[in-house]
Amino acid sequence: MTDPFVVVGGDAAGMSAASKFGREAPDREVVVFEKGEWVSYGACGLPYYVKGEVERLDDLVSVTPEEFVEERGIDLRTDHEVTAIDRERQVVTVAAPDGEFEQPYGDLLIATGAHAVEPPIEGFDLDGVFTLHSMDTAAAVRRYMGLDAPAVDLSAVGYGSIADEYAGVVAPEAVGIVGGGDVGIEMAEAFAAHDLDVHLFEMLPHTLQPFGAEAAATVEDHLAEQGVHLHLDTPVDAFRGDDRVEAITAGDADVPVDLALVGVGVAPTTDLAERAGVDLGPTGAIATDAYGRTNDEHVFAAGDCAEATNAVTGEPDHVPLALTANRAGRAIGQTVADDPTLVGDIVGTAAVKAFDLEVARTGVLDPEAARDAGFDPVSVTITTQSRAHYYPGGEEIQITMVGDRESGRVLGASMVGREGVAKRVDTVAAALHAELTARQLSYLDLSYAPPFSPVWDPVLTASKVLDGKLD
Amino acid sequence: MTDPFVVVGGDAAGMSAASKFGREAPDREVVVFEKGEWVSYGACGLPYYVKGEVERLDDLVSVTPEEFVEERGIDLRTDHEVTAIDRERQVVTVAAPDGEFEQPYGDLLIATGAHAVEPPIEGFDLDGVFTLHSMDTAAAVRRYMGLDAPAVDLSAVGYGSIADEYAGVVAPEAVGIVGGGDVGIEMAEAFAAHDLDVHLFEMLPHTLQPFGAEAAATVEDHLAEQGVHLHLDTPVDAFRGDDRVEAITAGDADVPVDLALVGVGVAPTTDLAERAGVDLGPTGAIATDAYGRTNDEHVFAAGDCAEATNAVTGEPDHVPLALTANRAGRAIGQTVADDPTLVGDIVGTAAVKAFDLEVARTGVLDPEAARDAGFDPVSVTITTQSRAHYYPGGEEIQITMVGDRESGRVLGASMVGREGVAKRVDTVAAALHAELTARQLSYLDLSYAPPFSPVWDPVLTASKVLDGKLD
Repeated sequence: MTDPFVVVGGDAAGMSAASKFGREAPDREVVVFEKGEWVSYGACGLPYYVKGEVERLDDLVSVTPEEFVEERGIDLRTDHEVTAIDRERQVVTVAAPDGEFEQPYGDLLIATGAHAVEPPIEGFDLDGVFTLHSMDTAAAVRRYMGLDAPAVDLSAVGYGSIADEYAGVVAPEAVGIVGGGDVGIEMAEAFAAHDLDVHLFEMLPHTLQPFGAEAAATVEDHLAEQGVHLHLDTPVDAFRGDDRVEAITAGDADVPVDLALVGVGVAPTTDLAERAGVDLGPTGAIATDAYGRTNDEHVFAAGDCAEATNAVTGEPDHVPLALTANRAGRAIGQTVADDPTLVGDIVGTAAVKAFDLEVARTGVLDPEAARDAGFDPVSVTITTQSRAHYYPGGEEIQITMVGDRESGRVLGASMVGREGVAKRVDTVAAALHAELTARQLSYLDLSYAPPFSPVWDPVLTASKVLDGKLD
Repeated sequence: MTDPFVVVGGDAAGMSAASKFGREAPDREVVVFEKGEWVSYGACGLPYYVKGEVERLDDLVSVTPEEFVEERGIDLRTDHEVTAIDRERQVVTVAAPDGEFEQPYGDLLIATGAHAVEPPIEGFDLDGVFTLHSMDTAAAVRRYMGLDAPAVDLSAVGYGSIADEYAGVVAPEAVGIVGGGDVGIEMAEAFAAHDLDVHLFEMLPHTLQPFGAEAAATVEDHLAEQGVHLHLDTPVDAFRGDDRVEAITAGDADVPVDLALVGVGVAPTTDLAERAGVDLGPTGAIATDAYGRTNDEHVFAAGDCAEATNAVTGEPDHVPLALTANRAGRAIGQTVADDPTLVGDIVGTAAVKAFDLEVARTGVLDPEAARDAGFDPVSVTITTQSRAHYYPGGEEIQITMVGDRESGRVLGASMVGREGVAKRVDTVAAALHAELTARQLSYLDLSYAPPFSPVWDPVLTASKVLDGKLD
């Protein structure tokens, strides 16, 4: 009997791997160590919990610890932190509530995820300054806003009670968000829904950097319409206040706020791997092969701590998103169960809701990144309609599409509009995987009916214009 | 100077060709003969005009005759019917309001479209029995329903007045629709919006035949919920009445109706081509090559009268839809302007709104058609969600996906649901063009955000299940 498959980290990648392994190799043992209390939860839903659209924190949980243990036969241990990996002896050291122990492994998956970057801003430790990267911090934000605690006793679904460290401020009026990425934009919507005055600080000239300047500019106009105070090109110097944050200082501005949320991105959590001599790749995340293996044949890595191959550039990339984590975890579970399965390439497809707008992107949009990958990027931006011109309710869709001058290949696209955007980008994502040229993309037979699209779908129009410019 | 490019038919294919030719070869002459009054109108919008969502008939016009003549420099002649083609002399005979004449051509495009099939049902000639295949019949249906005439004098936008042959029946109460295809379903919605009692007759066991039985069954449940009386597996024997239709006889049933609409499909209008010795293909539409050329190198055909190549089967197909017509017309305009351009393949992508449902399809769904094309079809049907499980407002999406056992290729898919269907099918359409396997499709990096999709997009889930069944 081989030693068990040991998984470090109980979120998307880890639980997908354990579940798949459990189904494929029911006679073999799998152990998951999760250092926190929560497993398998939808972190992408946290802004909607703060907003109030998701009523209960535990609504975000896909599968409870009990279900993993009882229905899937997985030896899941929360509050268990893996502190060291001895690759030679194939054991991990585990810090558990009742002491430390060693656990041997046959194969190991490092799925330690990512953590919120905490920029070196003065006053970061004041009360009322939050990042949003866990169930607990989301609950803390709501408590601090004076909103009610979760309506259920979470221990009933396998969790302890949420830390209640804040008494709540009475009627907060203004919040400051540091970072105009997807979390920052989603949180602006969440706070605005509570009638708070929202200040959004972004050190770069535009928000939503991965979505490109064209989409971002349209989003920014919309944010302003929604009453969000935008501070672009504005690095934050300090959070100020006595015990609690009371203001944000950024250049000459001094903006009073009752709460601050910092969302300047995430970094892969690699310290455990690094200490064990597992190699990182050029992006700073854990390097893996097409099967999710690291430089050690018995050690895999997946999810937000690991690299994936970008199908457009052919290079390692770090795009910490849920599908990549789920897919890689699942594939590794299958591989460890002796059915070698590719983790798959990514093209960096992402979507975000920004108040009434849908924003989406895929592939390589940044000209410099495209040139670094050996392309000669050409970009077009068009605005067209989401429905037939005569059908009521149509909205503008703005598409930016990038192609390579020499090969004619489509490299990426961004889209923004009030409807029909988030899933329309998938057509371009499919084209990127298939390495279609702009001309080939413009020739796809896409669906048409007046309520859903013009005769020439916006993707066709954009690729036709791009093809013309590449020609 | 060569003879002009002559186009027969002034709708999607014809006007696209003339417009593109005009832009590419501004010094050369193009003449369009249209036998009716209307050009370049959105026939797909007619049900929404009858419904009342499109207020004015001329809202359906994309470009007016004046704009074609004055802005695009096209010699457009409405009320001009081409009655014969002499391919040897390269002239067409034209019947105009002021007499017949001959027009020489350098190249000729036959874009005569399709016509509504009129099944041999007794009483078809009664007043109140309509097909819906032109602006005039749509206007006539509304007049017959006692609804107001178009609110504008259409002569102002280049059209004569709509024939006003019906006095209108007072307050119709019940309508019968013969044929459960897309037009029948759209008209059921249109009539129901006027609080009419709607009876829908379909001779086959299911409606929406090209969408497959699985999607159709879900649509039929929804139609019944909406109060539509479904008569499936029920051929209509007769329309009965004195002058006006008063009932529909189908088997044992005798259903009183005040109006009947027949939508049992369209047939390519090929008589002019046939008389001139232009070859038809196996589908009965005009055979064309990859450039839209017929068996005569100076005669092209495009749009609803012509075949196109199905990219899944590699065989000629006849799928009379707007995009195919526009695209082929445009390509032929470019080819005739001495820049040879492929008309492109189709995969038969289509979408239809059925009350609150979106229904979409692409590729080859029918098992017999798949076997005829040399495939061994395997089909799966799944039901999943349109959004993250915790995000409010999510709806079920049902997907049927068909693959080939030997190659693993995806052959087609249908989808039905209340949101996120019509454009989601485009991801599968792209996969069909790229000849992806079910496994490759299941590995696409598609967009995820809680308001728009589960982590595993329904297309990924369906292709994963299909891949498992093909394995």
